[in-house]
Amino acid sequence: MDRKEKAMALHREWKGKIEVTSTVPLETRKDLSLAYTPGVAEPCLEIAKNKEEAYNLTRKWNLVAVVTDGSAVLGLGDIGPEAAMPVMEGKCVLFKNFGNVDGFPICLDTKDPEKIVETIKLMSPTFGGINLEDISAPRCFEIEERLKAELDIPIFHDDQHGTAIVVVAGIINALKLVNKRAEEITVVINGAGAAGTAIAKMVLNLGVTDILLCDRQGILHRESPFTDPSKAEMAKKTNHHKKQGTLKDAMVGADIFIGVSAPEVVTEEMVRSMNKDAIVFAMANPVPEVMPDIAKKGGAKVIGTGRSDFPNQINNVLAFPGVFRGALDVRAKEINEEMKLAAARAIAEVINEEELTETYILPDAFDLRVADHIAKAVARAAINTGVNRLKNTKE
Amino acid sequence: MDRKEKAMALHREWKGKIEVTSTVPLETRKDLSLAYTPGVAEPCLEIAKNKEEAYNLTRKWNLVAVVTDGSAVLGLGDIGPEAAMPVMEGKCVLFKNFGNVDGFPICLDTKDPEKIVETIKLMSPTFGGINLEDISAPRCFEIEERLKAELDIPIFHDDQHGTAIVVVAGIINALKLVNKRAEEITVVINGAGAAGTAIAKMVLNLGVTDILLCDRQGILHRESPFTDPSKAEMAKKTNHHKKQGTLKDAMVGADIFIGVSAPEVVTEEMVRSMNKDAIVFAMANPVPEVMPDIAKKGGAKVIGTGRSDFPNQINNVLAFPGVFRGALDVRAKEINEEMKLAAARAIAEVINEEELTETYILPDAFDLRVADHIAKAVARAAINTGVNRLKNTKE
Repeated sequence: MDRKEKAMALHREWKGKIEVTSTVPLETRKDLSLAYTPGVAEPCLEIAKNKEEAYNLTRKWNLVAVVTDGSAVLGLGDIGPEAAMPVMEGKCVLFKNFGNVDGFPICLDTKDPEKIVETIKLMSPTFGGINLEDISAPRCFEIEERLKAELDIPIFHDDQHGTAIVVVAGIINALKLVNKRAEEITVVINGAGAAGTAIAKMVLNLGVTDILLCDRQGILHRESPFTDPSKAEMAKKTNHHKKQGTLKDAMVGADIFIGVSAPEVVTEEMVRSMNKDAIVFAMANPVPEVMPDIAKKGGAKVIGTGRSDFPNQINNVLAFPGVFRGALDVRAKEINEEMKLAAARAIAEVINEEELTETYILPDAFDLRVADHIAKAVARAAINTGVNRLKNTKE
Repeated sequence: MDRKEKAMALHREWKGKIEVTSTVPLETRKDLSLAYTPGVAEPCLEIAKNKEEAYNLTRKWNLVAVVTDGSAVLGLGDIGPEAAMPVMEGKCVLFKNFGNVDGFPICLDTKDPEKIVETIKLMSPTFGGINLEDISAPRCFEIEERLKAELDIPIFHDDQHGTAIVVVAGIINALKLVNKRAEEITVVINGAGAAGTAIAKMVLNLGVTDILLCDRQGILHRESPFTDPSKAEMAKKTNHHKKQGTLKDAMVGADIFIGVSAPEVVTEEMVRSMNKDAIVFAMANPVPEVMPDIAKKGGAKVIGTGRSDFPNQINNVLAFPGVFRGALDVRAKEINEEMKLAAARAIAEVINEEELTETYILPDAFDLRVADHIAKAVARAAINTGVNRLKNTKE
């Protein structure tokens, strides 16, 4: 059996990758009278008096809804809510395995942002956080912004921020290797959807001032006629030299290339046109924007992809379990920019200076130190920015 | 510690009675590539081709949403969605323990029937069934009816049908003891809310023709000026002799009294006014409509309550786990009248003729034969009425 057949056979055998289990004994009438009626009335009344007690008396403290509309699933596109479920269940497995977070998949039968926002708000009493997943741009921006404004639990669109955190972690360590500072470099990002936009914003927060964001039409610049407001906003925040042209033009003299776009859109020559000690993160899946051997020939010094069969895999799994673990541990009201940057720095720190090499800038997905290290950093950042409702009891 | 204190202390210790766990191994990169990307793309594509495959490749086949708006929780009333959660989690524990069903609690922050229906519809791709819980009448009727019409998965309002099934099971066995037939008896039901209405409908389906349904104003009769359409409907279906009067008047000459109302509204004299070999199910909690010793003095032959410290506990736990197990096992599109009646008969059958006594008409909540026996009966009834999408593989 090849991998495709094996994955299908296993999914048929598993019949779902998550299960809802009970944490309490239920063997006697007495157990029943404590976990259910009449004993259960007491915690109900306690929460009715003070809603915050829901975090102490129910699973809310650890439950994160993994919500999708199935509109932008993996590289598969708009396959609908039912077909998105294997990915959402997989995500919940990763949440549990790496962050001890109870992820629960909710696949919504609508693509209307208004209805998605409303539905998530209405079911939010159950959850301690919301992980948005595989919702297509630009709707994902509006949905996330509105939920952040209207709910006081962490809202996190992983396709945006999970990716951005890991990319920025990679940048932090790659810059150490090439001895450049964020303030002095030029970063080219190809792909101005959910991930590209979030990466650009976070790279700005890292201190990079010169960013060129490209879509299929070429470099975004503020004179372009935009229909998508998020692109118009990003055009204002990037490209201060008002450069016009194609991706090829953008890459001339750049220090870092970040691809969240399409297979093989970058040639050896384009890499060669970059600045000395170029950093190339080509994350299109399964075929990257430029294959690592070609980027190498073009003179790139540090190369990362989205694939596990090349060095430096840029994998969201590194970020989201620890980010939510940290946010939940201090009952953060949100996941803000400081918390995301703290997460990126924490991932980078897991690799110490002696270990750091051109083929080892990011920890392995199974490095169990990562989530815990991120969680502590994110919790600290939440406390420092005053968005916590609980002191971190783990430190 | 008394029971209240003990229940509170345990809920603080448990911090939630459910957990979302993973059913798959995740220890190596290979595991990750099969349960998550890239392997997960295959089951996604398979479901995109045929939605029914969601039952084979995800947990949909076993997931039931336990949905409330927190408006009618236990005897506590409208305590809101957060405060309802300990009950909903408890329900999920019972689902798992007795029916091996994955119940997941969703507490909704709205009491608008329109929004409740919409929210449940939008999140329904995740679930194989919906258990409505503790939603106040008459909204619960509209919500259930609309969901049944608009979704093709089982919808079950447990406060109505779970209660009705167990009451009817009790009636079936009690009638054997007093040697009366359903067709010849008079049944008085006090309480015309969710439970009372559902009990009346199911008792009609059992073959009883003479039913008097009472609310605080007395016996429902078709000349009453109703504001509640469900009461107007029930007034047409019951009270064929157009009797008017109070609960006391209703009980004169009745064979069965069923109380889903308030403490101590029935006196010894009222029981004494009933027909010979009276059956009294007084289910108000924690204090019944009439205490068993008083009903006994009044001449009642078979007495049941909602309490576990008296014989013949009428407990929903007997019904819902097995009902959903059976419905899920054959992928039933609905839970219809035949399936509910089959469930009631199955509960009654668990006690054989030699075992049956006045103080043992219903099996114990922990009788592990019950759920399995119901499940098989419900699955058969689903097949017989053609609402199954799968043949029962368990028989």
